[in-house]
Amino acid sequence: MIVNMSEGATEEQIQHVADRIREAGYQAHITRGAQRAIVAAVGSGRRNEIEALQAAPGVEDVVPIAQPFKLVSRQVHPSRTIVNVAGVHIGGPEIVVIAGPCSVESEEQILSTARAVKKAGARMLRGGAYKPRTSPYDFQGLGTEALRLLDRTRKETGLPVVTEVMSTEDVDIICEHADMLQIGARNMQNFALLRALATIRKPIMLKRGPSATVKEWLLAAEYLLAGGNSQVVLCERGIRTFETETRNTLDLAAVALAKELSHLPVIADPSHGTGRPSLIPPMARAAVALGADGLMIEVHPCPERALSDGPQSLTFEGFERMMSGLQEPLHRVALAAATAS
Amino acid sequence: MIVNMSEGATEEQIQHVADRIREAGYQAHITRGAQRAIVAAVGSGRRNEIEALQAAPGVEDVVPIAQPFKLVSRQVHPSRTIVNVAGVHIGGPEIVVIAGPCSVESEEQILSTARAVKKAGARMLRGGAYKPRTSPYDFQGLGTEALRLLDRTRKETGLPVVTEVMSTEDVDIICEHADMLQIGARNMQNFALLRALATIRKPIMLKRGPSATVKEWLLAAEYLLAGGNSQVVLCERGIRTFETETRNTLDLAAVALAKELSHLPVIADPSHGTGRPSLIPPMARAAVALGADGLMIEVHPCPERALSDGPQSLTFEGFERMMSGLQEPLHRVALAAATAS
Amino acid sequence: MIVNMSEGATEEQIQHVADRIREAGYQAHITRGAQRAIVAAVGSGRRNEIEALQAAPGVEDVVPIAQPFKLVSRQVHPSRTIVNVAGVHIGGPEIVVIAGPCSVESEEQILSTARAVKKAGARMLRGGAYKPRTSPYDFQGLGTEALRLLDRTRKETGLPVVTEVMSTEDVDIICEHADMLQIGARNMQNFALLRALATIRKPIMLKRGPSATVKEWLLAAEYLLAGGNSQVVLCERGIRTFETETRNTLDLAAVALAKELSHLPVIADPSHGTGRPSLIPPMARAAVALGADGLMIEVHPCPERALSDGPQSLTFEGFERMMSGLQEPLHRVALAAATAS
Amino acid sequence: MIVNMSEGATEEQIQHVADRIREAGYQAHITRGAQRAIVAAVGSGRRNEIEALQAAPGVEDVVPIAQPFKLVSRQVHPSRTIVNVAGVHIGGPEIVVIAGPCSVESEEQILSTARAVKKAGARMLRGGAYKPRTSPYDFQGLGTEALRLLDRTRKETGLPVVTEVMSTEDVDIICEHADMLQIGARNMQNFALLRALATIRKPIMLKRGPSATVKEWLLAAEYLLAGGNSQVVLCERGIRTFETETRNTLDLAAVALAKELSHLPVIADPSHGTGRPSLIPPMARAAVALGADGLMIEVHPCPERALSDGPQSLTFEGFERMMSGLQEPLHRVALAAATAS
Repeated sequence: MIVNMSEGATEEQIQHVADRIREAGYQAHITRGAQRAIVAAVGSGRRNEIEALQAAPGVEDVVPIAQPFKLVSRQVHPSRTIVNVAGVHIGGPEIVVIAGPCSVESEEQILSTARAVKKAGARMLRGGAYKPRTSPYDFQGLGTEALRLLDRTRKETGLPVVTEVMSTEDVDIICEHADMLQIGARNMQNFALLRALATIRKPIMLKRGPSATVKEWLLAAEYLLAGGNSQVVLCERGIRTFETETRNTLDLAAVALAKELSHLPVIADPSHGTGRPSLIPPMARAAVALGADGLMIEVHPCPERALSDGPQSLTFEGFERMMSGLQEPLHRVALAAATAS
Repeated sequence: MIVNMSEGATEEQIQHVADRIREAGYQAHITRGAQRAIVAAVGSGRRNEIEALQAAPGVEDVVPIAQPFKLVSRQVHPSRTIVNVAGVHIGGPEIVVIAGPCSVESEEQILSTARAVKKAGARMLRGGAYKPRTSPYDFQGLGTEALRLLDRTRKETGLPVVTEVMSTEDVDIICEHADMLQIGARNMQNFALLRALATIRKPIMLKRGPSATVKEWLLAAEYLLAGGNSQVVLCERGIRTFETETRNTLDLAAVALAKELSHLPVIADPSHGTGRPSLIPPMARAAVALGADGLMIEVHPCPERALSDGPQSLTFEGFERMMSGLQEPLHRVALAAATAS
Repeated sequence: MIVNMSEGATEEQIQHVADRIREAGYQAHITRGAQRAIVAAVGSGRRNEIEALQAAPGVEDVVPIAQPFKLVSRQVHPSRTIVNVAGVHIGGPEIVVIAGPCSVESEEQILSTARAVKKAGARMLRGGAYKPRTSPYDFQGLGTEALRLLDRTRKETGLPVVTEVMSTEDVDIICEHADMLQIGARNMQNFALLRALATIRKPIMLKRGPSATVKEWLLAAEYLLAGGNSQVVLCERGIRTFETETRNTLDLAAVALAKELSHLPVIADPSHGTGRPSLIPPMARAAVALGADGLMIEVHPCPERALSDGPQSLTFEGFERMMSGLQEPLHRVALAAATAS
Repeated sequence: MIVNMSEGATEEQIQHVADRIREAGYQAHITRGAQRAIVAAVGSGRRNEIEALQAAPGVEDVVPIAQPFKLVSRQVHPSRTIVNVAGVHIGGPEIVVIAGPCSVESEEQILSTARAVKKAGARMLRGGAYKPRTSPYDFQGLGTEALRLLDRTRKETGLPVVTEVMSTEDVDIICEHADMLQIGARNMQNFALLRALATIRKPIMLKRGPSATVKEWLLAAEYLLAGGNSQVVLCERGIRTFETETRNTLDLAAVALAKELSHLPVIADPSHGTGRPSLIPPMARAAVALGADGLMIEVHPCPERALSDGPQSLTFEGFERMMSGLQEPLHRVALAAATAS
């Protein structure tokens, strides 16, 4: 941590900062420039006490120089984590595609979708039982009935199931029925939920919040690891920007960056990330090309009749085409370098 | 609702859309232009079925023309709501200033702060017992101990107390101790929490999420009203933008807009909204000038020793100066028009 | 400037950074922590050479600790600048309201508007001759014809005129006709234009770009001052965010912050800042309350027939009401503190 | 265009809107719902007169239903445009990689870089002569001296050259020396420059502005095509968001969307788009995977000594590795579907 003193800070103010740094357990190193001084907190101590010095007289600002997360970082855990979801390994050599409807709506709907996506190559099934909806008047999910339908579907297709948990009160029942629990984007900083899920024995998929920085996302994961659950998969699903042509802006650089900073697997959700069916296949290809460990895709037998997220759902046929597209070579023709030589 | 057909949509596709509109309970009116047709859904029906038509063949997009919220709107409830918090009325003629520390840290800290802010004109006390913190390694609040200290402080100063609730599990205990419950910005779309708070008999302060539109904020309030709790105060506390000089961008137009669209009282929080003590007094004045019903301000006896949000807290003296500033006339000299005449 | 070395940076890498800092004219101070070292560049030297060290091996990042602007800062120029626009002083005790149509459309339109806004208290006239339009098919302004009409209007009303300059080629002709030249938001970083306007003898109004930070805005002004023109007024007109209910997000904290960091006058433009007529009067009041030196407001005799920006223009009557509103006291009733005592 | 009337709009207001629609050259179709009416403008007429109706009494809002651009759209021009830059074809089967330093700094620097990037497979050279810099105190480019060095470099290496034009005054001289002219992100809506470049016979690379929507970007291109220059390549280089870990947020969905909406070639610039060398190779792969027609990459012999953009420049070796990475198969192992069957 570095404390930048203001121009014109007095000697007394500088000493006061140095004293507080020592109080917090660090050593204090003062460097005096022509116009201002800086005081470095060296060693280890109580970080938040240094941050609070921003409010001390004569202080311009306080600059952290170390990353605030620990257990999720590659410095602490250099080898990559592989998360085992009922036999499907996320973070290993295989790209894991998770597909299914936004919400479970009926037995017919979830079963037919599961069969179709499995046939096209999906390895896991998604399907919402409890739905976070912007309006209280929108469809809120079938709840426990949906969980039973997911059980049946897994039994028939063998696909492990991921579903969203919105409340600490639902953790137990969802644990009984799901293979992986999803923390939705709007709950990324629902710390009560994070703490509850840190104590369970099921893997977690943690979606990035629509206005969360990569660091905040990793710190949310840190809650899970610090609480005892290290089976965490990160999922980038688009951030909120000024662009209105797409539902969100899928931040693929965040996928690469999260993999650089953390050992956890990272997948991408181009369905929420774009909100436009025509953009899902190219963005899925892009995510795979840069090293995403998997994809999460919304598929519905009849998108125009979906009770939620219809406009961004692929049909069975659309999903199959997307999957075929993932097999095509990286680009249409060899690069100039290759052709020239 | 209006369904815009694509250029080149077939007659069959147009009829299909019209049929689906009728199925959803509306009448369908088709208007044919030179290049494309539009189909309007007239009357009342199941809105989400029309939205899902975005996924139908030949549809360009679906445009809602009515506001999605009802009970919070001024159309349904033209007179302004006044929320009574243990005798303090928010939304009436008085500007209600709520002040106090980010977190309750000790008896000495909360009591001295309450006395100081009361003396300077605050009408309510804020103080966090359960704190949402980005990092699991930061101070998480004193919990029930803080609630007891808030009780004592109210007893001594008479100031009603608002404190944040982060989890459905804490609702009961916080209801026993607080006069008003705050839903924090990161929980604005924690729908389980919204549903739980819709059923209690205490007033709620609903902060706008850092990336929530005004409409989404009002729809979150709609959850509370639709569930039975109409004692809701909205609080704008800054949105997340690209600007890094301020912690957030305090969106004062959202205060004016929320008051235009809704009958609920609206207050502003320039402490979180700017994150810079020097900007709090001018933004507090601005909020009052445009019609905010109140302010929420962080105050700490010694900001540089605060366990959370120190850098944006005012000292007792700073708060007193801010309050005096609210009494000064709107601007420094009369306008040209006034001087000329 | 501070160079934070990575964890695990070698002694050789640290020395290399220190050498480069000395080469750039600074002294180098090395501080070694338990896990990483920092190297401070002390004194004065070639700043950009230190910034480039971010690319040196073993460097985590480079953190500037001084503001990058000089001539616009209050440290260099502590007294406030007052800009004299043909006798109207911006930045002094008077709040200067600049009003008029988005575009000059006809003699009748500009004359009637000028008379109306003058009567209501405006001190300057705005009116576009050359219009930056998103689409090439939209009205692009009357050009030199508009400049002649502005001349006539000034002659009759005595109001000084500000109009936008979009190109270095138009600088001379606009200088002949306007009292102040406006750099539009989209040209804030048109450096060729900034350099050309730095050499003229007319005052400049510099609008903040829709995605410019306050620092970038001040650095754009620095181009003008460094080039010789210190008659600069800054104008906040809203930034682009995710919110779609308003055309832009008027960042009033930026007005207060720009006045804190710089000696230049700062005004606000709630017309572009909100894009909604109903929000212009409250935001105008708010801007004045926090210390803006003036306002820029779009007014049109018949907004629904305006060739540009009609939806956000006030009618004559609306403008008059807005001006009256600026005279009302800061808030509806005295604060609790005042009533209690 | 559709005009949504407010709830409670009077019959007179509805008729007024219909009259104005007819005045503007359209037919008017009125649809009356239970709570509100809509008036559709059918046929073709003066679009901006309908937009201005947003300011008419009783109007809620005006919704465009057709895209505002014409010549750049695939509806008008279904076949894809291939831009020929001195024999290099952008938009055809080959992925064109353009590489080189941010600024031309010396003969040695530009020549060695050109040789290195050519050897690694680049087909065009980039190099700035006139540099847009946030601060007036930063290196502003070598100007005409740089143009001469670019000439020499092309002569020796055969690589066509693209360089940025910042001002209408520089258009002629840059046309003499460059094979393609770049409009930088900050000048995307410099309409004077767009108009000047619409009349030349050289291809243009149009960068997306940091806060421009995809539609605004296409409308900027429309200025070029409408003015007579259809040799336009679009370049996505990142938008400005709240995320601070990366310099910008590279919006790869915008590349796919621009290709869906327009016939113009689209390339991506992961150097500016991420600002972090480690993220450039994965984002380059991603861009290619989703169908970008090319890449623009900053390369410097010694990034830590670069006069501009050093921190985001690749070394020669880094660039070579990135190019090799583009040849690798799309993903590490076959998909589950493939292995299972």
